[in-house]
Amino acid sequence: MEFKQEWYEGAREAQQRAYAPYSQFKVGAYLITKDGKAYYGANIENAAYPSTICAERSALVAAMSDGYRPGDFKCITITVDADKPSSPCGTCRQVLKELCDDDMPVYLTHQTDQRMETTVNDLLPLGFSGKDLE
Amino acid sequence: MEFKQEWYEGAREAQQRAYAPYSQFKVGAYLITKDGKAYYGANIENAAYPSTICAERSALVAAMSDGYRPGDFKCITITVDADKPSSPCGTCRQVLKELCDDDMPVYLTHQTDQRMETTVNDLLPLGFSGKDLE
Amino acid sequence: MEFKQEWYEGAREAQQRAYAPYSQFKVGAYLITKDGKAYYGANIENAAYPSTICAERSALVAAMSDGYRPGDFKCITITVDADKPSSPCGTCRQVLKELCDDDMPVYLTHQTDQRMETTVNDLLPLGFSGKDLE
Amino acid sequence: MEFKQEWYEGAREAQQRAYAPYSQFKVGAYLITKDGKAYYGANIENAAYPSTICAERSALVAAMSDGYRPGDFKCITITVDADKPSSPCGTCRQVLKELCDDDMPVYLTHQTDQRMETTVNDLLPLGFSGKDLE
Repeated sequence: MEFKQEWYEGAREAQQRAYAPYSQFKVGAYLITKDGKAYYGANIENAAYPSTICAERSALVAAMSDGYRPGDFKCITITVDADKPSSPCGTCRQVLKELCDDDMPVYLTHQTDQRMETTVNDLLPLGFSGKDLE
Repeated sequence: MEFKQEWYEGAREAQQRAYAPYSQFKVGAYLITKDGKAYYGANIENAAYPSTICAERSALVAAMSDGYRPGDFKCITITVDADKPSSPCGTCRQVLKELCDDDMPVYLTHQTDQRMETTVNDLLPLGFSGKDLE
Repeated sequence: MEFKQEWYEGAREAQQRAYAPYSQFKVGAYLITKDGKAYYGANIENAAYPSTICAERSALVAAMSDGYRPGDFKCITITVDADKPSSPCGTCRQVLKELCDDDMPVYLTHQTDQRMETTVNDLLPLGFSGKDLE
Repeated sequence: MEFKQEWYEGAREAQQRAYAPYSQFKVGAYLITKDGKAYYGANIENAAYPSTICAERSALVAAMSDGYRPGDFKCITITVDADKPSSPCGTCRQVLKELCDDDMPVYLTHQTDQRMETTVNDLLPLGFSGKDLE
């Protein structure tokens, strides 16, 4: 899949909406559905740190609450203000695993035109899933 | 504040979007902003149970990722399929505390016209907040 | 129940073990079982803030992993370095609700001899529990 | 490192202590410190699914609350009742990343003498860490 510059811009826009008064580390995510809709996600922190929700998950639950279902997603782009890209935390990888195709592209970006591309499966090898509960 | 029937209907609509293959317990939330916009929230479960995100938080992070800020919210209505209302889990109360006014109404509904009304502060007395970190 | 000074000292000891490189906010918990055993709990933070585990929950899961069961707990004492006590976050309240008697005392302490006493039920009114899932 | 049968037995013992009334999926973990102490960990579920804490994290926070520090751990063994091993969820991988050496062995076992060996780093490639926050 060819990366589109507008996905990067969407993630940068999402990042502006981060609520990060505790870490000052703002993250933005831009999720594209297979039928062409886009969802913004920003990290929403909490004084009780464990209650924080990351940008990737914010975008995914917004889309799911709008009616999208697992497998409906085309790609996600993540961005941070740093001199290199950051990757999703373990919890976000687990949620990507549950809701997205294993080979769905995950684009990691930051302040420059540098970009890393990975996939859901590469981020969570041997991933725990519903099959393990059967 | 007078409760509006459309808030109940919004929560019921949100509940249809729940992704709850593990508990079969579908929850819907309908969040109203002070400037009149509405956000749907549904519980989005995960095979790894701790990675589940509840309906209340789904609605709140969707709104925040759209640019709303703490204090911008007017009320939230929650619904479940049960013979009595359920109340938010502790984590959702913590997120409500961070993002909503202490006296914001929280309406707990279920399958009938019965309804309980509470507030953010009543749900999290002596609530932990950013002031505790100073 | 009469508060014992050793519970305060246990919580202070636990607090020394906190791993809080991100917030610098160290919390200690000291959990007493009904048969007289004590468990230390400290907050264990994570660069990914949502993966942090608080002091109260650290103590509870340590005891449960040692074989204690819900209802086996007598009281918990929590302490912080501040000029007033802090109370448990919403997630910890939810875990206290699941594992402890509703009227179990929760003692909130800090650097002085001041102390607040509350209970599991008072911290999570209208608490969500397994009964809601039935 | 040569795997020791007693690590498997420790994990099986830990699994007996799981509190899993919601999923019925019991997990055990057995954590060994570099100085030779062992910690049991079991999954401790909650009616509010997101408040569940997994076996791996139970063991790690118990050890940390006892005074161990990041890097003090030698290996962890995990077990489940299934016809194949399960791997840690994303959140547990994130906590392993924070607290353990990147090359620390993680042994995945189940009901038979089959066993998989992996490492912290293999479970969380491109892992998010404190360096990302700097």
